[in-house]
Parts: sequence; C-alpha cells; structure tokens
Amino acid sequence: MDLEESGLNFRHKVGNQELVIAVAQDYKTLEVLMVAFMNREALQRTIDTRKAHYWSTSRQKIWLKGESSGNFQEVKEILVDCDEDAVLIKITQTGGACHEGYESCFFRELKGNKLEIIGNKVFEPDEVYNKD
Amino acid sequence: MDLEESGLNFRHKVGNQELVIAVAQDYKTLEVLMVAFMNREALQRTIDTRKAHYWSTSRQKIWLKGESSGNFQEVKEILVDCDEDAVLIKITQTGGACHEGYESCFFRELKGNKLEIIGNKVFEPDEVYNKD
Repeated sequence: MDLEESGLNFRHKVGNQELVIAVAQDYKTLEVLMVAFMNREALQRTIDTRKAHYWSTSRQKIWLKGESSGNFQEVKEILVDCDEDAVLIKITQTGGACHEGYESCFFRELKGNKLEIIGNKVFEPDEVYNKD
Repeated sequence: MDLEESGLNFRHKVGNQELVIAVAQDYKTLEVLMVAFMNREALQRTIDTRKAHYWSTSRQKIWLKGESSGNFQEVKEILVDCDEDAVLIKITQTGGACHEGYESCFFRELKGNKLEIIGNKVFEPDEVYNKD
C-alpha cells in the first residue's frame, strides 16, 4: 500500500527521518498511553501486523513495542488527523505501556514546577527488562 | 519558571525549533482532540494563561489555539511523559478542536487504503473563519 495515497504526510523531519506523530490510546478506557513517532516502514508494519511499531528517534531504528518487555500493543483502529501528519492508534495494551512500569507513560502531573506521580504502577521494570 | 527544572526535555528538533509533543484530550469525554508541538514559550504561556498555545511548524510561530476561531482550549491538567519530551493536556474545548469543523482532528479512520469519516461535525468552518 502506498501510504501517501491514503493521504498520509510524513512532513515532520526529526534527525533526518520523515515521520508522523503516533498517539496510542487504550481502546476501552480511552486513557492516552504514550506518544511517539512512526516512519513509513513502522506505520506499514503496524498496519500489516496490527502490532504497534514506532521509529525510535534516540536509537534511530524501528522498534516493535513489546519486543523486549512482552508488552505488545494490539491495534484495533487507526485514525488520521486533518493535516494527515499524525495518527491516533486505539489499542489493547498487554501489561503497561511505560518502561517505568506504569499503565501510561503520562503518569505524572505538572503541579507548580514539580512533577507529581498520579499514575498506576502495574509491573516492576526489573522483572520485565534485563532478564539476561 | 525554568521548564527544564521541572524535568522537561525539548529534545525534538523540527525545523530548528526545540519542541515537546503536545496531545490535547477532552477532560471529560477523554476523546483525543489534536496533537501538535510546543516550544518553551508556548508551553510557558499555556501554563501561565491556562489556555493552550502551540508552536506551528508550518507557520513557524506561536499560535494561541482559538485566536481566530474563538475555539479556545481551557487547560485543566498538564501531564508529562516518562521521557519528559511530551505533554498531555486535559482540556475543555470551546466549539470543536478541528479547523475543518469537527470535534476532534482525528475524524477519519484508515480502512484499507481509504480514509473514512467517523467524527462529528460541530461547526461550519466558513462561518467561523475568514469572516472579514
């Protein structure tokens, strides 16, 4: 499939990669779980496998969410925004979305100039990562 | 307030601006309304005024959401993600968030290689913009 034919617009360049923003939202609770980027291949793999793939701007590579933690994201719906430079994926999250063990990566609220933890911890990162 | 002191990390550079990703979610319905970027000043103005301000990567300027449409976003909570390079703002939206007249900018679903409209139209853009 030609993603541009569907109207998608990879106009945001970060570190020389052409990307769309990808917001992941829990399909049932509607909680926003994370936001990241996808390049064409990451979005194509997401469409083909129905498992969320992202482009890591720090590691400069495609990343299958859950590949090391087992916390995969099963994609139920893919929505596209008006500018066609962002997607909203509605997903079912295994375990938690956040590598720090929380349901959502947005587990802290900015209050004054402090970050206050408001999220639910659902797993212990040490038990999930670095098992070797 | 020094935003970096709060842990914020403007590491994503788009068109030479250092930015955080900003996802806007309806405070009550939890619908994701839009996603855009903020530079330091846009985030600071958002914090100070409790009205969402963004950095427009196409117009290369700060933009008070609602300045031309009247569809302001009143900010109730600001959440920060684990990497500290994205914020989730929970808002009350006047009118609709999308300049095309929909409640949410994510008003279309990718089905096969087509975009199908699934969102609610809440205003007529012609009646809101370009009134001069």
